[in-house]
Amino acid sequence: MIKVAIVGGTGYTGVELLRLLEGHPQAEVRTITSRKEAGMGVAEMFPSLRGLKRFGNLADCNVVFFATPHGVAMAQARELVAGGVKVIDLAADFRLKDAAEFERWYKMPHACAELLAQSVYGLPEMHREAIRKARIVGNPGCYPTAIQLGFLPLVEAGLVDASHLIADAKSGVSGAGRKAELGLTFSEASDNFKAYNVAGHRHHPEIVQGLKGVTHEPVNVVFTPHLTPMIRGIHATLYARLTKSGVDLQRLYEERFAHEPFVDVMPPASHPDTRSVRASNVCRIAVHRPHDGDIVVVLSVIDNLVKGAAGQAVQNMNLLFGLPETTGLTAPPVLP
Amino acid sequence: MIKVAIVGGTGYTGVELLRLLEGHPQAEVRTITSRKEAGMGVAEMFPSLRGLKRFGNLADCNVVFFATPHGVAMAQARELVAGGVKVIDLAADFRLKDAAEFERWYKMPHACAELLAQSVYGLPEMHREAIRKARIVGNPGCYPTAIQLGFLPLVEAGLVDASHLIADAKSGVSGAGRKAELGLTFSEASDNFKAYNVAGHRHHPEIVQGLKGVTHEPVNVVFTPHLTPMIRGIHATLYARLTKSGVDLQRLYEERFAHEPFVDVMPPASHPDTRSVRASNVCRIAVHRPHDGDIVVVLSVIDNLVKGAAGQAVQNMNLLFGLPETTGLTAPPVLP
Amino acid sequence: MIKVAIVGGTGYTGVELLRLLEGHPQAEVRTITSRKEAGMGVAEMFPSLRGLKRFGNLADCNVVFFATPHGVAMAQARELVAGGVKVIDLAADFRLKDAAEFERWYKMPHACAELLAQSVYGLPEMHREAIRKARIVGNPGCYPTAIQLGFLPLVEAGLVDASHLIADAKSGVSGAGRKAELGLTFSEASDNFKAYNVAGHRHHPEIVQGLKGVTHEPVNVVFTPHLTPMIRGIHATLYARLTKSGVDLQRLYEERFAHEPFVDVMPPASHPDTRSVRASNVCRIAVHRPHDGDIVVVLSVIDNLVKGAAGQAVQNMNLLFGLPETTGLTAPPVLP
Amino acid sequence: MIKVAIVGGTGYTGVELLRLLEGHPQAEVRTITSRKEAGMGVAEMFPSLRGLKRFGNLADCNVVFFATPHGVAMAQARELVAGGVKVIDLAADFRLKDAAEFERWYKMPHACAELLAQSVYGLPEMHREAIRKARIVGNPGCYPTAIQLGFLPLVEAGLVDASHLIADAKSGVSGAGRKAELGLTFSEASDNFKAYNVAGHRHHPEIVQGLKGVTHEPVNVVFTPHLTPMIRGIHATLYARLTKSGVDLQRLYEERFAHEPFVDVMPPASHPDTRSVRASNVCRIAVHRPHDGDIVVVLSVIDNLVKGAAGQAVQNMNLLFGLPETTGLTAPPVLP
Repeated sequence: MIKVAIVGGTGYTGVELLRLLEGHPQAEVRTITSRKEAGMGVAEMFPSLRGLKRFGNLADCNVVFFATPHGVAMAQARELVAGGVKVIDLAADFRLKDAAEFERWYKMPHACAELLAQSVYGLPEMHREAIRKARIVGNPGCYPTAIQLGFLPLVEAGLVDASHLIADAKSGVSGAGRKAELGLTFSEASDNFKAYNVAGHRHHPEIVQGLKGVTHEPVNVVFTPHLTPMIRGIHATLYARLTKSGVDLQRLYEERFAHEPFVDVMPPASHPDTRSVRASNVCRIAVHRPHDGDIVVVLSVIDNLVKGAAGQAVQNMNLLFGLPETTGLTAPPVLP
Repeated sequence: MIKVAIVGGTGYTGVELLRLLEGHPQAEVRTITSRKEAGMGVAEMFPSLRGLKRFGNLADCNVVFFATPHGVAMAQARELVAGGVKVIDLAADFRLKDAAEFERWYKMPHACAELLAQSVYGLPEMHREAIRKARIVGNPGCYPTAIQLGFLPLVEAGLVDASHLIADAKSGVSGAGRKAELGLTFSEASDNFKAYNVAGHRHHPEIVQGLKGVTHEPVNVVFTPHLTPMIRGIHATLYARLTKSGVDLQRLYEERFAHEPFVDVMPPASHPDTRSVRASNVCRIAVHRPHDGDIVVVLSVIDNLVKGAAGQAVQNMNLLFGLPETTGLTAPPVLP
Repeated sequence: MIKVAIVGGTGYTGVELLRLLEGHPQAEVRTITSRKEAGMGVAEMFPSLRGLKRFGNLADCNVVFFATPHGVAMAQARELVAGGVKVIDLAADFRLKDAAEFERWYKMPHACAELLAQSVYGLPEMHREAIRKARIVGNPGCYPTAIQLGFLPLVEAGLVDASHLIADAKSGVSGAGRKAELGLTFSEASDNFKAYNVAGHRHHPEIVQGLKGVTHEPVNVVFTPHLTPMIRGIHATLYARLTKSGVDLQRLYEERFAHEPFVDVMPPASHPDTRSVRASNVCRIAVHRPHDGDIVVVLSVIDNLVKGAAGQAVQNMNLLFGLPETTGLTAPPVLP
Repeated sequence: MIKVAIVGGTGYTGVELLRLLEGHPQAEVRTITSRKEAGMGVAEMFPSLRGLKRFGNLADCNVVFFATPHGVAMAQARELVAGGVKVIDLAADFRLKDAAEFERWYKMPHACAELLAQSVYGLPEMHREAIRKARIVGNPGCYPTAIQLGFLPLVEAGLVDASHLIADAKSGVSGAGRKAELGLTFSEASDNFKAYNVAGHRHHPEIVQGLKGVTHEPVNVVFTPHLTPMIRGIHATLYARLTKSGVDLQRLYEERFAHEPFVDVMPPASHPDTRSVRASNVCRIAVHRPHDGDIVVVLSVIDNLVKGAAGQAVQNMNLLFGLPETTGLTAPPVLP
């Protein structure tokens, strides 16, 4: 039984970790900490978790999940790792390999840049073997998960102009986290649709880093995030220009993901909807070539809190501890 | 392992049964039938269930769930029961003890009125022992579940004027089922709120029958259903006038439900929200007495598709087969 | 042309006043002030109002609308009124006649209690003649508007037990104002339904005061507010026990409101929905007597920002200045 | 006073025409017809319009709006035009100049192909002068309005590779019309996001035809429509690759639309949201060039029922009858 600690158990990724681990047969949450709501029981904040009780401390655990704002995990990772505790950070501290890049986007110095070399980017579909041996996992961002999985087969195979990729992505509001912000209120965000951060979003360098890792060509991505009035879900609509002809794209995708337990390549002409993955760890992908032209359109959907955060973190934990990768992650989506 | 058949696997209660039973360690869905969408795989209608495959026939099973419109279960129940198969009907065929009452509200003759005497109303909090021995269970309606559980302690204890009960109930849109109706479209039902069927709703006789069973006084309920723009959830706001004074209502509720695994009496002054039970089998209840007056206000919330339908049906299956009542029903609510 | 000032033009009632007055043929908004967002143009906060430009000061105007938090209007009213400027307060400063009652609910001393006697409660359907002559109008709260209009005919006619009235009311999220609060975020408030302030809500004394004014019997109201996932709209479901029989309720309502331009009594058996009044100043009411019992059920819907706030304020302005009451308020509801 | 008839007054574009014309000082709706709901008053279907009364027939009118399914207008246009009645079709009968193209996409023969030559595509920002003199106006589709206005300055100026345009567009559910369809129900369409018709959408030829009219280069557009859980609104996110450098895009857009009353070019770095145009005839546009790369990103928002349908139709009517173009269309957006 893996002894688990969650730091920051009161944000949306934290409470989602609790929900998923509650059904995990080989893991037990021993400790939940939260600076923000000190002295408040989890159940007081989340009546959905009434009845849960936790005790213990981080050092007693086998793995610590950081479901915290950026900057928290890197302050504690060195000591935990030295003590033999595995670290899975759901924030950005261990996603970017280049500390300078981190500092440019997150506006804070990196507290343990020397650990970046050994930390592993936790996208199992790209780095499965490295994750198995890692001590620190940088769990991917929600947008980068949907977008990289969607582009991966095309870029790996060198079929498209990687210097002109377009990722038009739409996120549910929970992607912004559990915070009181005017623009996130129901009165402002419902019955509304808008783009944001078109000039630059923190997930941009992460996407570029990932795709650069699988090609020798220059990679440029125009990434346009949008806010859509739903709680959960990301829908990435991806555009790339083919540089080779005569490729069976459907087959390419099916073969690339044939052995991936959490990537579902839909039949030709499909339009996956976000609710088809709600509360589950699945990424569903469809690939189109409209009017048989030279632009490929890929549709990629995930639940931002599961495959885009807590579920992928549990998937990584399973890898870290040698469990079957799907352990605790097989509950079907909640629909309707 | 209980062999399960689902008749009508393509409505919302059917697909919810599939979701819940997928995680049930002692039950296996062998058969799914659907007249409406014959020849269409479940996964084609519900991409959330891609990968599920089923075969078999009803008679091979230990229990058949009818997740069908009213009138289907009663046409097949006699034969199934004779063959030793248990029947759990999620529609209304076996809810009302009085066939005439059924016919008045559902506008069809009852096909097996003689089975009504032995069928059991499947609200475990009222009829647990009878359910254990039943062959046919009439699974309660969604509104009646929330409303009866909320009124039960008051009416059982004879503390209120049972002839003037008021149930102001609000339901998410999935309560209307999976059907194409103008009034249920997003453009008509979102950003909107309305009452409906104020003159009379089919769940009314069911509520009255249940409450009459626990008191010797006349029972009258004014029941006002409303449609609210959410997918899942029922919120019942209940009003009753106290006829006795000096009662500790909080304690009354806590004691009545102390051993109920799926009824959570909230602390004093609470306001349970529907999302705190989303996708789970829990009913949360809070009891108030505003301004210390003589009117009690009870707030009772459930997920209409779980405790109000499929979850309660699984709970009943567990009772029918001697399993721990919570088997397969312990997943935490999905929040946010 | 009436010269108008708006204090607090950046909350939802302020921006709604701007929208309505933009189409008013006899009024012109000269001044908009906002402490919160000083130096920021209205259009920066509300792109819907790009192009509006304002100048001037309060004393130059004929009427000042206070679309501010409680406590602001009473600090400036004395001076304005002395200078001959009419005041319409959309907050609570001039709603309650009893300063002590105000102080109990709003937790602040009243700054000009001596003006309460001459200020008029701005519900035209009850106080039309007094409003015409007033210098200060206390514009009603949103819940009290829907609830009083719904109960009025019954209580005026002495047909019901006024000491046991029940008002089960549901509000859209904009009723909470334009503020960043966790519970109002889309992730928390959508796909959810809950009651709040069951123990006591600030609109309670206002409702009781209004109904007491039209009957000699004691008045008690149990008022249960709920939050529903829509932007605009209030749906009040009202319950009262008849003390007289043989009354034609439909006719009672039709006659009471026959000459009211903004109260629409629906045909028998109707269920008005909130969207049927969206963005308009209309209150639609239906009256029911389920199962011919002794409990009357009244359904009353308004747009909380229009008839429940800014629209009613404009209606009051029209009365104050001798204009036809419907001037500038005839635009049809926005549906869908 | 222009005498107006509306054929098909009971769909969403019909009822929106009624709402807008109700506030038009120079037009009067004399006749509303609807085959679908014969014998039913408008107010019975749309309580928001209770009180409206209409009489008369088409031939008495100066202009007939067809707010009908495709195929209705073309059956009646010849006779009406012969009688001197102007025709504005909100469906597709007069949008495409090429009857064969119409027949390919709409699966019906064109009933009056000879009128296509003289009918005018009703996008005033492109064809203002021709509209003034027209007898038949083909009112643009909602997507084509947002997309063409967004691309127009770039394509007219020959700054981009017009053979690789990408239009990623998101529509509220009312865009699908007022019809009972499973995929449009609240339970299926809310808390969800999906693309549809990626392989080909009927608005595609209309977009291509429009852009071809302003350039000599070949035009190809990849157009991906999506359904987003809101009632009204279209958000088009447009991508084009610059073929010339050194252009001030902000200035290009501002100058192109400087005299357009209904196109609002937002300040640099803006992200217009759909609610900022809700219920109004405005199109708001922002232009971006992320990371100073060679891909331009244009954000273009409209209300699909107003600038995307009924509002633009009224704008066209104003042009047809020599009125100031903004007559009856100046009401501010409804926000929140």
